[in-house]
Amino acid sequence: MTAASRASSLGVIKPDHAHFSDALYLESGEVLDEFELVYETYGALQPDGNNAILICHALSGNHHAAGFHSEADTKPGWWDTVIGPGKPIDTNRFFVVCPNNIGGCNGSTGPASISKTTGKPWGSLFPQVTVGDWVESQKRLAQHLGINQWAAVVGGSLGGMQALQWSVTYPDWVTHCVVIAAAPGLTAQNIAFNEIARQAIFSDPDWCGGDYIDANTAPEKGMALARMVGHLTYMSADNMSDRFGRELRQGSFDPDDDEQPIFQVESYLRYQGSQFATRFDANTYVLMTRALDRFDLAASSDGDLAKALEHASAEFLILSFSSDWRFSPARSREITTALLAAGKRVTYSNLESDAGHDAFLLEEADYIALLHAWMQRVAA
Amino acid sequence: MTAASRASSLGVIKPDHAHFSDALYLESGEVLDEFELVYETYGALQPDGNNAILICHALSGNHHAAGFHSEADTKPGWWDTVIGPGKPIDTNRFFVVCPNNIGGCNGSTGPASISKTTGKPWGSLFPQVTVGDWVESQKRLAQHLGINQWAAVVGGSLGGMQALQWSVTYPDWVTHCVVIAAAPGLTAQNIAFNEIARQAIFSDPDWCGGDYIDANTAPEKGMALARMVGHLTYMSADNMSDRFGRELRQGSFDPDDDEQPIFQVESYLRYQGSQFATRFDANTYVLMTRALDRFDLAASSDGDLAKALEHASAEFLILSFSSDWRFSPARSREITTALLAAGKRVTYSNLESDAGHDAFLLEEADYIALLHAWMQRVAA
Repeated sequence: MTAASRASSLGVIKPDHAHFSDALYLESGEVLDEFELVYETYGALQPDGNNAILICHALSGNHHAAGFHSEADTKPGWWDTVIGPGKPIDTNRFFVVCPNNIGGCNGSTGPASISKTTGKPWGSLFPQVTVGDWVESQKRLAQHLGINQWAAVVGGSLGGMQALQWSVTYPDWVTHCVVIAAAPGLTAQNIAFNEIARQAIFSDPDWCGGDYIDANTAPEKGMALARMVGHLTYMSADNMSDRFGRELRQGSFDPDDDEQPIFQVESYLRYQGSQFATRFDANTYVLMTRALDRFDLAASSDGDLAKALEHASAEFLILSFSSDWRFSPARSREITTALLAAGKRVTYSNLESDAGHDAFLLEEADYIALLHAWMQRVAA
Repeated sequence: MTAASRASSLGVIKPDHAHFSDALYLESGEVLDEFELVYETYGALQPDGNNAILICHALSGNHHAAGFHSEADTKPGWWDTVIGPGKPIDTNRFFVVCPNNIGGCNGSTGPASISKTTGKPWGSLFPQVTVGDWVESQKRLAQHLGINQWAAVVGGSLGGMQALQWSVTYPDWVTHCVVIAAAPGLTAQNIAFNEIARQAIFSDPDWCGGDYIDANTAPEKGMALARMVGHLTYMSADNMSDRFGRELRQGSFDPDDDEQPIFQVESYLRYQGSQFATRFDANTYVLMTRALDRFDLAASSDGDLAKALEHASAEFLILSFSSDWRFSPARSREITTALLAAGKRVTYSNLESDAGHDAFLLEEADYIALLHAWMQRVAA
């Protein structure tokens, strides 16, 4: 974070909490008797309530999308490149809301929260939640904040899926819908990668069937491995070749210790995995991957995606990145084609990038410029 | 295996063993004082010894390339589609030799063998071997069999790398060289996938630092996970979508047990992983992935692949498969371009296939026909 980008940021942000005491009926048939959401807001809500934008986070994201948590904080929120004064999602114009989803591990009710029934962390007993459940909980938050309609719902990856779900579940609520690097449902290969990540976690003896907090431990090795798998799918092969190539970690092979990393790329992946393992809850990771696997926008209309989108009234922006092989440009084109077939207003762009799926989080000039220009049509 | 394909097979094959009591000096600087190779041969060696073909196996392969091990055996060798009477590698014309490589786990000296020094399984003490070391050991086997030149050296994937290495290390030995679905060296992404597989094994408590046999256990969970990762890279995304799509295992979600597979593709991958874990040695898997990572044909000529191939005298056949993303067609084109730049005789074809990397093991009609036609030029 350079001094310049810090100057253009929102500064210090304090998260808020909201408690919801009405039961949330989940798609699984289970019920959350009450729940809490942690969220951040940026900018000011207009008296007419018409300038609110919902930001939906992805697998490992949270409510901290922009700004810093203290003056000393060196790392801004995960989408600080996109959200802030004068940025594409301009906090001088919009009131931006970003909650941590239920099932998360950053303050909203999730597997690591204490269950009132048992007095212990939910752990393995926390119910599976879905993209649809998140939409319901986000609607509760909107009402809590005095919002009756979103000027836009915006998300990348799993966040984009929530934006899509909003547009069809509550069409009157969504005037603009921005779906970045997402898909209408996972492929078998996508599911397979998620399953490998889950198996890595389940295979760790410290998983304890999901009740590791109660056992005073954590499946950190399994989580590290799960993250290595995930992280690999976020980068493009070309980008990895450019960054790491076949560079050796210590300039030579070290055949005496086969468990140490030899190549730089091994060392990098291990570091990413072990860092993530200390900050993210394993049950949340499993739950998020299951929510991803289960999302299937066309399922309710017998696989007809255009039919599923029929009742949406939003204007859509669909973006993909050329080197994204997790949710490839073809998946965004499926969404775009279905929207066109359903007679919707839609702008689609496949942005040239070497950064793979991760591009949606990065300050790629064409991407930021396009998003900035498109957001001008969102009234505030 | 249908009755028809069994009829066209070699029938029952008995593996042979050869013991080599002269030390093998490894690229790592370590020494194997002696070693044993298990191998199979098909067809008859001509008195002039000019009709011998070497088959090099890939990561999880072995010496059992064709035929059956008993009358009751229902599963033929791993390349029975390619090797046999009237097949592309025609055992009516050629004397075909296929050894299990050193470091393997199917009978050749490897980590599970008993070390004469300790009287215990080698385990973690088995030295890292390389593609170059395999070429040396295969040359010893050739001399043992009275062979002074290969009519062809043939391999797919890691086997193709051995064929390439043969062509430059012993140009006088190799008159034809067939390199299928291979690469001149691994990319950062390739290495990353191998590293995830290794971490899966190392993270298993039953790994015991590689000395699991001595501890009377085996890291089967880690191996299953490693194989799931590997297997995923052998299949194309389209092929997985065609085979599994989003099909549910029991027709519905089962949110009560999050550790059970929900989708068919999860169930399939778990089965593949667990089956492999019972039949393959974990140290061998680690060793094979390291050998893959380290292979870099151009390293000895400062990254100039054409220069590395300068002294080869073989005629080359290079084949790739359109949907292979483990070793993509681009990697085979690198080899082909370098061979052309070095003035070598080379035929290259990128075969249309949905089967991904695995295509090289399958009976894909265009592939078999092309290989069959090309092999006609190999004198026997």
